[in-house]
Amino acid sequence: MPFLPQETLITATPEEGRALAMKMARFSIKAIQPDESVRDELRPAYANNADSLTEAAHVVAIEFATVAAANNYWR
Amino acid sequence: MPFLPQETLITATPEEGRALAMKMARFSIKAIQPDESVRDELRPAYANNADSLTEAAHVVAIEFATVAAANNYWR
Amino acid sequence: MPFLPQETLITATPEEGRALAMKMARFSIKAIQPDESVRDELRPAYANNADSLTEAAHVVAIEFATVAAANNYWR
Amino acid sequence: MPFLPQETLITATPEEGRALAMKMARFSIKAIQPDESVRDELRPAYANNADSLTEAAHVVAIEFATVAAANNYWR
Amino acid sequence: MPFLPQETLITATPEEGRALAMKMARFSIKAIQPDESVRDELRPAYANNADSLTEAAHVVAIEFATVAAANNYWR
Amino acid sequence: MPFLPQETLITATPEEGRALAMKMARFSIKAIQPDESVRDELRPAYANNADSLTEAAHVVAIEFATVAAANNYWR
Repeated sequence: MPFLPQETLITATPEEGRALAMKMARFSIKAIQPDESVRDELRPAYANNADSLTEAAHVVAIEFATVAAANNYWR
Repeated sequence: MPFLPQETLITATPEEGRALAMKMARFSIKAIQPDESVRDELRPAYANNADSLTEAAHVVAIEFATVAAANNYWR
Repeated sequence: MPFLPQETLITATPEEGRALAMKMARFSIKAIQPDESVRDELRPAYANNADSLTEAAHVVAIEFATVAAANNYWR
Repeated sequence: MPFLPQETLITATPEEGRALAMKMARFSIKAIQPDESVRDELRPAYANNADSLTEAAHVVAIEFATVAAANNYWR
Repeated sequence: MPFLPQETLITATPEEGRALAMKMARFSIKAIQPDESVRDELRPAYANNADSLTEAAHVVAIEFATVAAANNYWR
Repeated sequence: MPFLPQETLITATPEEGRALAMKMARFSIKAIQPDESVRDELRPAYANNADSLTEAAHVVAIEFATVAAANNYWR
């Protein structure tokens, strides 16, 4: 399994960059816990806990900062 | 549902940039937990917990760092 | 209510920049929990918990990084 | 034991950069807890806890930001 | 009480920059909890908890990143 | 006791930079909790807790980001 969903950090739009950031975070989780059935078991508790959701949004924000810089902020 | 509230990171003012950063964080939460009724259920506990609020402010600060850099700090 | 305490990230001095960073964090909290009476209720527990204080200082540090970059570090 | 898996931050591709970021995080853990048997004991609880996985992904995101900047984002 | 221990982020050496970063974090705590007796009460539990110490070191690292950038890394 | 293990952020190699980042984090802990016997007491619980190890790796990653930037990523 690859560690990144695509072979470049460059995207056409901020929207695509955001989607990439989200996938990057998910790919990290998959790399650390490759067993899909375990991830599926963990999901309900996590998706129903506000602090878990905030922390996930936190990781997306950090990944997006890198993607945005890579794309020179799509300026 | 889109991952970003608008198709650019560029805003006219820091105030608008801050509003964008807040929405970006909220859109992440919605993408991870798309069920509005669940999010509504989670909100009271979260909005009445100081540490949860601080962590939410933390995510906003990180999103804003990216938006501010994209706008060259509105200098 | 505005999301930022002033209409620019530019300040005359690092001291004013630090004050701005602190207000930015507080404005985030107010935006997420607009009910002042709730915030007042939460304050004692939070202000008497070392980890809560450290996490608040953490957010201030991140906001300040953005403000300092905006001001080219007041060099 | 070295602190880094390779003698440079430069990689040929983002994918290799991501792999490096993951190894960097693991090497930190090994440096702090060098006893492999302890790390093996800790792994199940950690790999079956959503918040632990998110926090691990968080560290990977930060390491990757550095690797990506080092590689000028493979532009 | 000022929010910063000195009127500039510029220091002569990395060592002085690190000392500044530590003071910046402490000044944040003082600004949020100005009552010295409360801070003194909180200190023992905090200084005897490994996770609290790590989180404090985390904040120092972030403050130092800003101070180091301000000083162009004392290159 | 100094706050930094050496009088410059410049290192010959990424490996030495990583070692510096690790020492920087440790020096922070020592500055906040100078009593070696307390730190020794705290170590077992911390080194046997996956989340504590991850958070320590997190701080190392942030310190390393600064050291790497200071060294222009050893490019």
